[in-house]
Amino acid sequence: MNQIKMQHLKGVEYNVLDHGTIEIVDWMGGDDDIVKAARISTGSSTKSSQEDERLIDYLMEHHHTSPFEMCEIKLKMTMPIFIARQWMRHRMASINEYSGRYSEMKDEFYIPQEFRLQSKLNHQGSDGKLDKEENDVVRLTTQVYSEDTFKLYQYMLDKGISREMSRIVLPLSTYTSFFWKIDLHNLLKFLKLRMDPTAQEEIRVYADKLWEIVKIWVPLTAKAFETHHLNSTTFSEEEMNVVKSLLKKVPDYEKLVKECKLKKRWKDKLLDLLK
Amino acid sequence: MNQIKMQHLKGVEYNVLDHGTIEIVDWMGGDDDIVKAARISTGSSTKSSQEDERLIDYLMEHHHTSPFEMCEIKLKMTMPIFIARQWMRHRMASINEYSGRYSEMKDEFYIPQEFRLQSKLNHQGSDGKLDKEENDVVRLTTQVYSEDTFKLYQYMLDKGISREMSRIVLPLSTYTSFFWKIDLHNLLKFLKLRMDPTAQEEIRVYADKLWEIVKIWVPLTAKAFETHHLNSTTFSEEEMNVVKSLLKKVPDYEKLVKECKLKKRWKDKLLDLLK
Amino acid sequence: MNQIKMQHLKGVEYNVLDHGTIEIVDWMGGDDDIVKAARISTGSSTKSSQEDERLIDYLMEHHHTSPFEMCEIKLKMTMPIFIARQWMRHRMASINEYSGRYSEMKDEFYIPQEFRLQSKLNHQGSDGKLDKEENDVVRLTTQVYSEDTFKLYQYMLDKGISREMSRIVLPLSTYTSFFWKIDLHNLLKFLKLRMDPTAQEEIRVYADKLWEIVKIWVPLTAKAFETHHLNSTTFSEEEMNVVKSLLKKVPDYEKLVKECKLKKRWKDKLLDLLK
Amino acid sequence: MNQIKMQHLKGVEYNVLDHGTIEIVDWMGGDDDIVKAARISTGSSTKSSQEDERLIDYLMEHHHTSPFEMCEIKLKMTMPIFIARQWMRHRMASINEYSGRYSEMKDEFYIPQEFRLQSKLNHQGSDGKLDKEENDVVRLTTQVYSEDTFKLYQYMLDKGISREMSRIVLPLSTYTSFFWKIDLHNLLKFLKLRMDPTAQEEIRVYADKLWEIVKIWVPLTAKAFETHHLNSTTFSEEEMNVVKSLLKKVPDYEKLVKECKLKKRWKDKLLDLLK
Repeated sequence: MNQIKMQHLKGVEYNVLDHGTIEIVDWMGGDDDIVKAARISTGSSTKSSQEDERLIDYLMEHHHTSPFEMCEIKLKMTMPIFIARQWMRHRMASINEYSGRYSEMKDEFYIPQEFRLQSKLNHQGSDGKLDKEENDVVRLTTQVYSEDTFKLYQYMLDKGISREMSRIVLPLSTYTSFFWKIDLHNLLKFLKLRMDPTAQEEIRVYADKLWEIVKIWVPLTAKAFETHHLNSTTFSEEEMNVVKSLLKKVPDYEKLVKECKLKKRWKDKLLDLLK
Repeated sequence: MNQIKMQHLKGVEYNVLDHGTIEIVDWMGGDDDIVKAARISTGSSTKSSQEDERLIDYLMEHHHTSPFEMCEIKLKMTMPIFIARQWMRHRMASINEYSGRYSEMKDEFYIPQEFRLQSKLNHQGSDGKLDKEENDVVRLTTQVYSEDTFKLYQYMLDKGISREMSRIVLPLSTYTSFFWKIDLHNLLKFLKLRMDPTAQEEIRVYADKLWEIVKIWVPLTAKAFETHHLNSTTFSEEEMNVVKSLLKKVPDYEKLVKECKLKKRWKDKLLDLLK
Repeated sequence: MNQIKMQHLKGVEYNVLDHGTIEIVDWMGGDDDIVKAARISTGSSTKSSQEDERLIDYLMEHHHTSPFEMCEIKLKMTMPIFIARQWMRHRMASINEYSGRYSEMKDEFYIPQEFRLQSKLNHQGSDGKLDKEENDVVRLTTQVYSEDTFKLYQYMLDKGISREMSRIVLPLSTYTSFFWKIDLHNLLKFLKLRMDPTAQEEIRVYADKLWEIVKIWVPLTAKAFETHHLNSTTFSEEEMNVVKSLLKKVPDYEKLVKECKLKKRWKDKLLDLLK
Repeated sequence: MNQIKMQHLKGVEYNVLDHGTIEIVDWMGGDDDIVKAARISTGSSTKSSQEDERLIDYLMEHHHTSPFEMCEIKLKMTMPIFIARQWMRHRMASINEYSGRYSEMKDEFYIPQEFRLQSKLNHQGSDGKLDKEENDVVRLTTQVYSEDTFKLYQYMLDKGISREMSRIVLPLSTYTSFFWKIDLHNLLKFLKLRMDPTAQEEIRVYADKLWEIVKIWVPLTAKAFETHHLNSTTFSEEEMNVVKSLLKKVPDYEKLVKECKLKKRWKDKLLDLLK
């Protein structure tokens, strides 16, 4: 079913930012294969689809990550170099990139639509936007500047200077392309970090698009990941002590938990935790 | 300070199980170096020790794992093969092991003091113990059986059969030795999994010993790891909804949080989460 | 073409040793995809099949390994534990293994047909065979011993002892199963080491079978790997000095090289090296 | 001995390119520890220093790489971003980098002394230099251009635009800093690739400096690496056939080999290969 949906998406090029793209080149495995890999430990074979869903949820909740390594995806990405630099810090992936030593760089730069202001709270983030008039000026300036830089680059190439040396004048906003092959476990780790609100918006738009693809590719895994990672809440020891002391003030909280619509396993866990 | 304590522990051999050992061979870096590595991002230099502690806590809470990779430890371990098999599934480490192809195996087997019974709840765990009398019988049987096996092994060697072939009759309880070199981030990931109550007791005793060493080596990191990982609590989306609905029933919970002795940053986070 | 051949092999179970198996579960990519990945550096698209072959040969010769990471294969393996231990020392692979904690081990042991003798030259290898009569005795002994051990294992299980504890009496010759997923570059590195005459024969038979599969899967890559790695010769600095001094004694060696049937690129390289 | 030399080098900052640096921050292990790790396989202890040298040579020749993973080094590097991009493609290392999101970038750019011309033979390399007069013009142009870009960057910061957005106009020649921690085996792999004449000159100068450090740190390993990797020669199957056919024309080549000053083990290997 999902293999068919994925088949339709193969080769489709999604647009991201002003010149960026994401293309699904190939993939291997799906939810079924995660289940199959997990069941080799127990020696049991595939069961009902309901039990498969429960197993994937269980694996995700308990950080049994190895079965998720059994799925693999290969994408072709086009993105500005300052984003590619963040991207490639994730080491558990295979990469082949366009080479500015071997070939001429293209006249493509990321020119932001809207310039964001420096956040006061988050030292590494943005908050709010430049006002429209100023934004227009800065956009035009960076546009003109990028074109001038590219002229300098071509002037150097025309002088016979090597590509590997000429390219060093190009800005970090220049686009590059690469194949990126990664297993599902490491892709999810990547998404957790790069879909986070503290990640730079320009990498987040790529991560968000990949997340849409993941939801089509492995819907059961995506759902479990949402439940236990994207939308979960972690309390430190001290925080949890406060939560517990608060809950003790709820008249009859045990009864309330028992009556809620959680699965039995989770009710027990919750009661156990709040004790 | 802790570098001096570690210096004293270098070469000391801890005993684990009946014939197992852990020895600290060498290490590189400490809490200070994690702080230094983290501060390169901000371009700032070392500050007060209180701020260092806060920074390490912050890094741990927010899964900024790379500075913890800057510390490294090398140990010499001796353990039964069935434990070494679990141990070596952790791939982010360097290993050199005693070779049963190259050298003769030693007459050392793990003979459990107490045999545990199969858990009904946890398919892969134990629960309760064999009664004393039966335990004595099974201990003696496995003891005799191990000795007999070793005689078979030596008989084969005496016949001139190669070491690589003779060793295959030896049981999984045979001891092996290896150097194990790992960075602190990956060591903590390992400990989280192998100190867990669901891990096999025989690997847990090794993990627990390593955890003691970590607490001496990098006390600030160990404390932060305890707060945010070992003793933290994670609620899934559904569970958190129940917790929130319960807390809404506490009269004046916001005031109570504000008055508790948590750090301000955590109070705000908690109020935000519970909204 | 080869994708069709591979499709036919999917799910086929090859027999290795007395109870071992190799099964191709899934794979991603082929020679074409290596070429595509390599060509992203140059920005050029696919060309003639002859040029593809030359490119793959070039990549292999010059250790441009990343394009070979773009292919992936997943296998299901059954093998004795002493072999699985060597297998899993290769870290760049994903593994899900049958669990002796979760499920009962099967009554399957590797009983060698022929016991090899200890090599005098190679400390970790075998050389020659036990004479037939003695071989029969040792085979029978290990057979009986394995059966007895399995009875002890079952006796322990019957006593209610947990699976995780009972299994430790089983010998290293016991069979285990696992999924193994690896990229082509790392598979070739593995094969180079494990098809080597110094590798233990019992792992070599698995490696040899995998090599047959690789030749069907990616024939151009396999051929280039044979030329530049499996059948290549490396001379150290000192050795090469001797080779050069010898060649200087061949009357007219330059002319002979120029007239031989090597490709021009290789002739030039050779002349350059021998200078 | 070498540990003392290294101790003296700790904290020393080497200059590379116009604003680049390499600093030895810390290290763990040396030649001795490689020997110790290798000897765990054989169960034997340390022997004469001559035997240690022979063992390291043997390990290097036969690609027994794991003992070399037992040494670790941590460096602080400052280099232009286009070089850092190549550097970080090596995945088996730990990195903490200066963050242009968190802190303002410094006014430091790589301005080449001499611009190299595009190589005709090597599509990704340089060959020859721009003539002096033109070189002066291009140097001045890139200098002025870099300063102008930095003014644009500061103008954007002054407007309140976030650091993470402003930096994208900076050129690839901008300097960045990072801690780099890597084990000796992976460092040698890195050096083999990046000291190669086909590597970009700007990364080669860093690699060459590291190689000098390696020769001080682990002299026996460095020597063996030189013999078997840096200065070795590999012939493909076809090339080797030509070499053999040539050598057959040398009158009495066997006698000549036997009389040369190679170690006996290598003579035998050579005679075997040339048969």
